[in-house]
Amino acid sequence: MKNQKPKVVIVGAGFGGISMAKYFKNKPVDVLLIDQNNFHNFQPLMYQIATGGLEPYSIAYPVRRIFRNYKNVRCRMAFVESVVVSEKKLKTSIGDIFYDYLIVATGSKTNYFNFEPIKDKLLTLKSIPDALNIRSFLFQNLEKALSNETQDLPEVLNIAIVGGGPAGIELAGALAEMKRYVIPKDFPELDTSKMNIHLYEAGEDLLGAMSQEASDKALEYLEGLGVHVFLNTRVSGYDGTALLLPDNTKFYTDTVIWTAGVKGAPIDGIPSEAIIGGNRILVDAYNSVVGTENVFAIGDVAACLNDENPRGLPMLAPVAQQQGKHLAKNIVTHLNGKPMKPFRYFDKGTMATIGRRKAVVDLPKWKFQGTFAWMVWMFIHIMSLVGFRNKVVALLGWMLSYFTYDKPLGLIIRRFTK
Amino acid sequence: MKNQKPKVVIVGAGFGGISMAKYFKNKPVDVLLIDQNNFHNFQPLMYQIATGGLEPYSIAYPVRRIFRNYKNVRCRMAFVESVVVSEKKLKTSIGDIFYDYLIVATGSKTNYFNFEPIKDKLLTLKSIPDALNIRSFLFQNLEKALSNETQDLPEVLNIAIVGGGPAGIELAGALAEMKRYVIPKDFPELDTSKMNIHLYEAGEDLLGAMSQEASDKALEYLEGLGVHVFLNTRVSGYDGTALLLPDNTKFYTDTVIWTAGVKGAPIDGIPSEAIIGGNRILVDAYNSVVGTENVFAIGDVAACLNDENPRGLPMLAPVAQQQGKHLAKNIVTHLNGKPMKPFRYFDKGTMATIGRRKAVVDLPKWKFQGTFAWMVWMFIHIMSLVGFRNKVVALLGWMLSYFTYDKPLGLIIRRFTK
Repeated sequence: MKNQKPKVVIVGAGFGGISMAKYFKNKPVDVLLIDQNNFHNFQPLMYQIATGGLEPYSIAYPVRRIFRNYKNVRCRMAFVESVVVSEKKLKTSIGDIFYDYLIVATGSKTNYFNFEPIKDKLLTLKSIPDALNIRSFLFQNLEKALSNETQDLPEVLNIAIVGGGPAGIELAGALAEMKRYVIPKDFPELDTSKMNIHLYEAGEDLLGAMSQEASDKALEYLEGLGVHVFLNTRVSGYDGTALLLPDNTKFYTDTVIWTAGVKGAPIDGIPSEAIIGGNRILVDAYNSVVGTENVFAIGDVAACLNDENPRGLPMLAPVAQQQGKHLAKNIVTHLNGKPMKPFRYFDKGTMATIGRRKAVVDLPKWKFQGTFAWMVWMFIHIMSLVGFRNKVVALLGWMLSYFTYDKPLGLIIRRFTK
Repeated sequence: MKNQKPKVVIVGAGFGGISMAKYFKNKPVDVLLIDQNNFHNFQPLMYQIATGGLEPYSIAYPVRRIFRNYKNVRCRMAFVESVVVSEKKLKTSIGDIFYDYLIVATGSKTNYFNFEPIKDKLLTLKSIPDALNIRSFLFQNLEKALSNETQDLPEVLNIAIVGGGPAGIELAGALAEMKRYVIPKDFPELDTSKMNIHLYEAGEDLLGAMSQEASDKALEYLEGLGVHVFLNTRVSGYDGTALLLPDNTKFYTDTVIWTAGVKGAPIDGIPSEAIIGGNRILVDAYNSVVGTENVFAIGDVAACLNDENPRGLPMLAPVAQQQGKHLAKNIVTHLNGKPMKPFRYFDKGTMATIGRRKAVVDLPKWKFQGTFAWMVWMFIHIMSLVGFRNKVVALLGWMLSYFTYDKPLGLIIRRFTK
């Protein structure tokens, strides 16, 4: 007995995959949503996990719980090993899975560029375990700075962040606030003047994708918090203790947090002619993967090149969400025998926060910074967190931290050594 | 320039070490509190971490933050390798540390008895990482039970708990409630009748240290929740898939959670004549370690044998707390040239919870069970959690879970494989 409804398989429960599966509620398709984790996480707040401002459960929510009342959506936690497009088949850690429509929504991963061979010496911020490792490492080093044996080593307290995009500046701001407000209380014996926070950006500006006003204000805010920002500075090497700078000077640090770039994370088996620069999958205006049938890609991993966006759309949550919803609509339209419509991105603006009452917001027609921007940032992020419980907990946590300046607990639940 | 105040070094930031250091506030001693973790944790609620009812930060609090306003208490995160009593010296991971008074408050660790050689095949519940591993393992298995390749294996869903003390019964109750209220909603495709929860106790009763009424009621509650309880049943072997029972039958399970016993965790270098049965340190009525000078032991690791307690006091938080406070007072008394007083334990009672509105309480003169017992249990545990923030968060979390039956998120943040 064959199931009559077409089977839509979505790989990846990020912003794109989730928004797509949600649209399919009670539509005439069977949806299977596969992810290597059993939760969706709110990537834009990952830096808060690293600095202890939020706990993992505040930004992560079980995929199964999101789709509890969706009778035609099933969830599986599995690794997808490859796709065999000629057989409409996925090979996975839980066996072969066949599809009628395949959606690749696998997102992006850290791009180490020329630091790839020494990536194990770097910390990164792409997943919750990554972020918890940063947290453990930072607090282990604060303890080391009090040990007889390591207290005089400059690398123990110094911190380098490589990359001046949103992740880098948000992390730098949070660390600077921690240095100023929390560490002196919990580590009164420590001389925090030995803790230097350096941020290295290869380009001319912080937040290169935002407006000049936003870039300039972010720089001003970070310097005001005591972060040393180095623009036009491409770090050239790292031996685990000293970061080598282009002028051949060194910055001694144990802690190099790499936020310098990401690249697509496609599935093996996608035709190689569809894999383009940045490891992304080339799609047409309908998010259909070039050279395949019934295979689509959305979000960070997908790139539709045109005159307006010669390098594809930016890797942002709203792009993925809009593409997910649009593609789901298109598939339903297609099943009804009607023509699909091309995707168009509606840019609602971008924002970043540097610290308490310090944020920058670029709307299409209005750019502003400061306390009001921070309140807008806060409101948007809390409202975006998936699930009622998460919202309330995040709100309470943030309110408490606002009134006490005291949030990061810095529990070293699992030690981390590189 | 020599510091004139005597140096008290406390090893272990459990209930004993914390209560002792607190008493020393502004007393004429310098206190150094050493622990291998940077937090104190509330051990009695560890089973809640394993089942996802609470998050680590709800039952853990940074040691440094407890002692923020204690000018004469310093904290160090370090491993203590050994003590050299002849030199009044500790060897630690952060160098040598000298003491005038040493307090060993290192607690207890899992006793695997004859299962020691295969302990890596067992799960346990002694630390937060242990508990998080149980959580990951349980939810990984729920996912495996939906995989084409492993769904028919009985060991995937079955769970065995070995040991019918408080930890074992509290865990069994929480798992039974999860099976009944949460899993059917999040895993609608799963046949939960294949999930059998077995509890094995070698003795005649559950909760052997409590009253007969409490033992009987705990059994009734667990069976009412669908747990299969086996009394007088000493498990005899485990190959990773099948648990061997004394009647030579087998129970197929991936998941054997070992709560069958604990033993003391003393420091190397304590004179061997002071190490007695159960790996505990023999102390006199003043908690002074037999055969040493100015070395004391309190809490689970210490045992004072007398006619009333031929095997020492029970390994309970209130014993450790009372001993810590008493010993701190005695040291101050001693510094004032007055004689120390012997320790006497004031038994305020014991309690355990099996599930919502199901708890057992033994007070010295009153034993009761049921909803009121559960409310008493809840009240005592919330009030005991260290730190204001923890209390509020635990209370909110519990209230939410009470009204929704829906708490365990089951986030598999880090996979765990044995």
